[in-house]
Amino acid sequence: MDNSIGKTLKMTSFGESHGRCIGVVLDGCPAGLRVDPEEIQRDLDRRRPGQSGLTTSRNEGDRLEVISGMHRGRTTGAPICMLVWNKDRDSSGYEERRWTPRPGHADWTAHVRYGGFNDYRGGGRFSGRITAGLVMTGTVAKILLRKTLGVEVFAHTIEIGNVVAGDRTVEEIKENTEGNPVRCADTEAVALMVEAIQMAAKEGDSLGGTIQCIALNMPPGVGGPVFNTLEGDISKALFAIPAVKAIEFGLGTAYSKARGYEVNDAYKLERGKITMETNNAGGVLGGISTGMPITCNVTFKPTPSIRKSQQTVDIFKMEETELLIKGRHDPCIVPRAVPVVEGMVAFILADHAIRVGMIPKVLGRDIK
Amino acid sequence: MDNSIGKTLKMTSFGESHGRCIGVVLDGCPAGLRVDPEEIQRDLDRRRPGQSGLTTSRNEGDRLEVISGMHRGRTTGAPICMLVWNKDRDSSGYEERRWTPRPGHADWTAHVRYGGFNDYRGGGRFSGRITAGLVMTGTVAKILLRKTLGVEVFAHTIEIGNVVAGDRTVEEIKENTEGNPVRCADTEAVALMVEAIQMAAKEGDSLGGTIQCIALNMPPGVGGPVFNTLEGDISKALFAIPAVKAIEFGLGTAYSKARGYEVNDAYKLERGKITMETNNAGGVLGGISTGMPITCNVTFKPTPSIRKSQQTVDIFKMEETELLIKGRHDPCIVPRAVPVVEGMVAFILADHAIRVGMIPKVLGRDIK
Amino acid sequence: MDNSIGKTLKMTSFGESHGRCIGVVLDGCPAGLRVDPEEIQRDLDRRRPGQSGLTTSRNEGDRLEVISGMHRGRTTGAPICMLVWNKDRDSSGYEERRWTPRPGHADWTAHVRYGGFNDYRGGGRFSGRITAGLVMTGTVAKILLRKTLGVEVFAHTIEIGNVVAGDRTVEEIKENTEGNPVRCADTEAVALMVEAIQMAAKEGDSLGGTIQCIALNMPPGVGGPVFNTLEGDISKALFAIPAVKAIEFGLGTAYSKARGYEVNDAYKLERGKITMETNNAGGVLGGISTGMPITCNVTFKPTPSIRKSQQTVDIFKMEETELLIKGRHDPCIVPRAVPVVEGMVAFILADHAIRVGMIPKVLGRDIK
Amino acid sequence: MDNSIGKTLKMTSFGESHGRCIGVVLDGCPAGLRVDPEEIQRDLDRRRPGQSGLTTSRNEGDRLEVISGMHRGRTTGAPICMLVWNKDRDSSGYEERRWTPRPGHADWTAHVRYGGFNDYRGGGRFSGRITAGLVMTGTVAKILLRKTLGVEVFAHTIEIGNVVAGDRTVEEIKENTEGNPVRCADTEAVALMVEAIQMAAKEGDSLGGTIQCIALNMPPGVGGPVFNTLEGDISKALFAIPAVKAIEFGLGTAYSKARGYEVNDAYKLERGKITMETNNAGGVLGGISTGMPITCNVTFKPTPSIRKSQQTVDIFKMEETELLIKGRHDPCIVPRAVPVVEGMVAFILADHAIRVGMIPKVLGRDIK
Repeated sequence: MDNSIGKTLKMTSFGESHGRCIGVVLDGCPAGLRVDPEEIQRDLDRRRPGQSGLTTSRNEGDRLEVISGMHRGRTTGAPICMLVWNKDRDSSGYEERRWTPRPGHADWTAHVRYGGFNDYRGGGRFSGRITAGLVMTGTVAKILLRKTLGVEVFAHTIEIGNVVAGDRTVEEIKENTEGNPVRCADTEAVALMVEAIQMAAKEGDSLGGTIQCIALNMPPGVGGPVFNTLEGDISKALFAIPAVKAIEFGLGTAYSKARGYEVNDAYKLERGKITMETNNAGGVLGGISTGMPITCNVTFKPTPSIRKSQQTVDIFKMEETELLIKGRHDPCIVPRAVPVVEGMVAFILADHAIRVGMIPKVLGRDIK
Repeated sequence: MDNSIGKTLKMTSFGESHGRCIGVVLDGCPAGLRVDPEEIQRDLDRRRPGQSGLTTSRNEGDRLEVISGMHRGRTTGAPICMLVWNKDRDSSGYEERRWTPRPGHADWTAHVRYGGFNDYRGGGRFSGRITAGLVMTGTVAKILLRKTLGVEVFAHTIEIGNVVAGDRTVEEIKENTEGNPVRCADTEAVALMVEAIQMAAKEGDSLGGTIQCIALNMPPGVGGPVFNTLEGDISKALFAIPAVKAIEFGLGTAYSKARGYEVNDAYKLERGKITMETNNAGGVLGGISTGMPITCNVTFKPTPSIRKSQQTVDIFKMEETELLIKGRHDPCIVPRAVPVVEGMVAFILADHAIRVGMIPKVLGRDIK
Repeated sequence: MDNSIGKTLKMTSFGESHGRCIGVVLDGCPAGLRVDPEEIQRDLDRRRPGQSGLTTSRNEGDRLEVISGMHRGRTTGAPICMLVWNKDRDSSGYEERRWTPRPGHADWTAHVRYGGFNDYRGGGRFSGRITAGLVMTGTVAKILLRKTLGVEVFAHTIEIGNVVAGDRTVEEIKENTEGNPVRCADTEAVALMVEAIQMAAKEGDSLGGTIQCIALNMPPGVGGPVFNTLEGDISKALFAIPAVKAIEFGLGTAYSKARGYEVNDAYKLERGKITMETNNAGGVLGGISTGMPITCNVTFKPTPSIRKSQQTVDIFKMEETELLIKGRHDPCIVPRAVPVVEGMVAFILADHAIRVGMIPKVLGRDIK
Repeated sequence: MDNSIGKTLKMTSFGESHGRCIGVVLDGCPAGLRVDPEEIQRDLDRRRPGQSGLTTSRNEGDRLEVISGMHRGRTTGAPICMLVWNKDRDSSGYEERRWTPRPGHADWTAHVRYGGFNDYRGGGRFSGRITAGLVMTGTVAKILLRKTLGVEVFAHTIEIGNVVAGDRTVEEIKENTEGNPVRCADTEAVALMVEAIQMAAKEGDSLGGTIQCIALNMPPGVGGPVFNTLEGDISKALFAIPAVKAIEFGLGTAYSKARGYEVNDAYKLERGKITMETNNAGGVLGGISTGMPITCNVTFKPTPSIRKSQQTVDIFKMEETELLIKGRHDPCIVPRAVPVVEGMVAFILADHAIRVGMIPKVLGRDIK
């Protein structure tokens, strides 16, 4: 249970990796928002398999279908159901290895949780493929934030394996990220990251990495304390992405070694407005946006599917065995996860902006 | 809005730092659980101010009152309202500095969010004092998990400032943690941590740190994918604790630099049961418990209240100014946060265990 | 916003009368339930237009498609998305009368609520057509209740216009209801009801009526007090059906004129089990099932679409005008609403039975 | 579980009849609302026992205490905890009749539901006393609606036993209701109602009745279709009041016998605004307010506690027995329930008005 998230803007995810489709119902989107389906399609394309030599060869066109909630190019206030049909399903192999759970995957925990009734083909509900739904919703949220508040949400890869990207300005990040297959803004790190992935792939191994997400122009005053924090809700949304294992805001884990005096963000006036000298907090204080860019880092574990023999247990015969996974897998999921991270952050920000009344329930006709 | 969390086990927090009380309503706790109020009191005492020379001198007895939901020492199935009355309130100083938000605190964001109507005294709803409510609920959850499933949840300090504790066994952690004022299981690191805190205090500065939480004996099969992950729900609950800025599960951020082959947890059989060779995943795969210990690390930023002059803005006069905070503050909040972290993790695990039916709605009379 | 209902069993509705489809996502259905799609189809057929001479001539096959959440004929524990595609859409007429709201319909309130962005064609989200989704979910709930608890949920027409059916036994209700076009168990009243509808239709007018729903074999102990009552949740679900205006449990409005002594249901023993002499309460005390049949009456207003000239306002020109509605309408919606009422009652009972643990999250393999 | 209701405005109820208190946490109330505690107290006094010769002699002062969420007479945006302490508890009698459930009460269903762990004294959570919490919340909602939208919510008794009040104008209802002990606006019916109650009381019996609630000045456009209807949410809230068994909107059950042409509310223009000729719909179309008065009728069953010997089962010995209830009871609960009904309707209207953005999250300082 509970494939839904959000309070006023709410999404419900459905679909399985090897079922008929991957979809989502987005409820509570303000009426009157003009949504260009091509903008959603572009983000689906950024996420879809087969987009570069670094990704799985499963070839899904992932063509968006909007089957409710839109009329004449605008949202109506009714729930928006969006989906992509699964086409290139190859379920062979899943029957034979049904009883030998893949290390690092959810095969075994899913089996226990659902008493063996779960659709195990391709990982079922646990597949990275379900993130197509997160992208569709996320892009609608990005459009809503942009058109009503001027908020921009974008993400980029800052670490893959041992390659750490250097800091880049917001302009560089915007300009450089989409021009390379690893979605890294540090153009010097790109070649090293590509090489690292290729080497891991060659060895049948896989790599982890880290994505940073930035939301610009978020007005101060969105969020709340206790169980209403931006950090808490963003984290919950990000952990819906398979393979995410850590979330940091602002300085993140580096706060542990810091002293208060050096990391407190001092207030200042800038053109008559209150702002801060620094943004160590990552744009959130007391769970509420400060007006500074919201920044968070999301760590992904290496793809658990590798082409190396691994030890597992045959849970039917209850004996230890070796497993060699065949099939089509990404040696590093990080580049394809970039639009998913953007989408989840945007979704939560949009939900919270509606909650505090910054985005109205019915948009003005002046919003193009 | 939304001071509630949880699905079947649900808590609603109320109260302010300088209001009349800090309280919580716990709804959905199974009927028939024998709860010893002294056990809750002990955790409140671990959290309360004034417990050692390292903490604030605000002196709150924090005596638990249970004002609903219990009858003859057992839960009845009705909502349990628990609270502590605020006694040692010193609101002087808050009026004078009402217009000069403290850097690193939520003063300014709260002002924006609530249009200046918020109770700013002592940080109001944004104060660390609200965690007394989280502890009360958390201890009930710990009792519930222990008596029904044998689950043990405990936390310990692993980093304060630049002092990093060495790895310790579960037995050492259980034995050593409560014997020292920083709640660190590495007895050699304790003195260094105490010294670091005292030095920071002397300089009017503050320190951050990291707490690790462990849940032992959690059965496999609790949690779910997508928006139902243990990681997501635990994170959301932990970010309710003021000053938390990062959450990691298992290897956490270190996964970024790892390779799949070295971090995938291989399955094995042990006395006829399926288990794993390693626990890099921190006890969670696909959002579901694996049966291995659930481990997460929580990073705290340094207490923003420091006795050093800081730059801020007088938001009434709209001019930059200097602020020197007086009052009573913890130079490092980490040691007092240990029972709060335990409580939040236990609460989410209990909620999820009820959801999947592992804990019944009415306990058997054999559960003492 | 909020097209979802339920706590552990949760449904989200989507689709519009003249959009591409009517659908629903059912989340939280226990894993392992064998669902025969033909059983759902049969209930869709009981609801669908064009099934008899008394209903609208809009001709929708309403063929069920299950696009997620099932594998090998069983539920998997994943969200179940079900839909019917809209085929026989005739949107002509809706453009021309867009600015003249139909009395008794939601045209004007929807326009105000959504700022004119709502899909007004065929009533959009406010159409009776959305109840196809409620039926799909409801039948899954009926199957779940029947296979796990032996609960049977069925409804029948007890009043249409001025024709009031006589009391019938449960056996007669089960046997007679589906054999006639008004779904009434009193075979003598059937002809009068049919005649009343035909006469109203001939005059271009419409009739209201009342449906009674009965749930047999519901075990005692399901539900709860305060905001968890069976009555409250069932009512909320039933008011999702357009045209419903009153809900009564047991004696319902007749309780107003009663005395305590004559309506209190006395307890007795029957074959060693506690039961009651009478069932005035309609199977619910304190919001909790008593073990007696759960009975509720649901009153429907006459179909607002009539072929008579009515006074309305041209909201574009802001002047009063006359409106004559063309198109295809049911002179009395009651007979087609019978499976919808069953479905909503079953859905809430199933949700509550799961909540208290009477239906497990994973079904045993012995449940066929 | 689930003692909470509401989406953006949310209340959580706690407390038991013979526990320490009856309380409520109100979350999501906009910041900046000036609340006069005396106004809440006045409604508590309208509900409290012992207010007239017709009510129980249990004497509770029911003095309001607000223990969080207010600062300087205004709401802060933080959760508002309000309670009354139980003083005049007389738990004698409850031990002795613990095993003999009272017919018409929830004793037995509660016992089954909570495995006998429930606090049975005075009905525990199932007592009418919990409605004190509903009143406290409700009055805050009434204040909020009045000050922001000019909405007035008031209720009056229209039926007790066989005495049916005649129709009265809104002005008469406002003027007459509070001047008599049965809260009936038809001054001629008052004496008959009083007499009926006294006669029932003398015979040790009890009476049911019906309350009508009216909300004036509710703007059109509040509410929504499907699972978001005003009718559904109001019903769910009203069924939280013990003894409620039927809810009707507008014509209610009389719709069953009506024809469309006679009950469709025709639109007209009045001083340039769209309104209706009649208000058969009770102010709601498609789940959304029409701008006409919202009207609903609520039927109460007779108080189940009567001073007559009744048949029950000794559930300890499992044998049939006779039960004669002593103690202090209202022969007719209806007059005291009037402010509770108002409160629940107001609460839902306020929640929905916030949801659609008609009431902002932070009130302007011009709202007194």
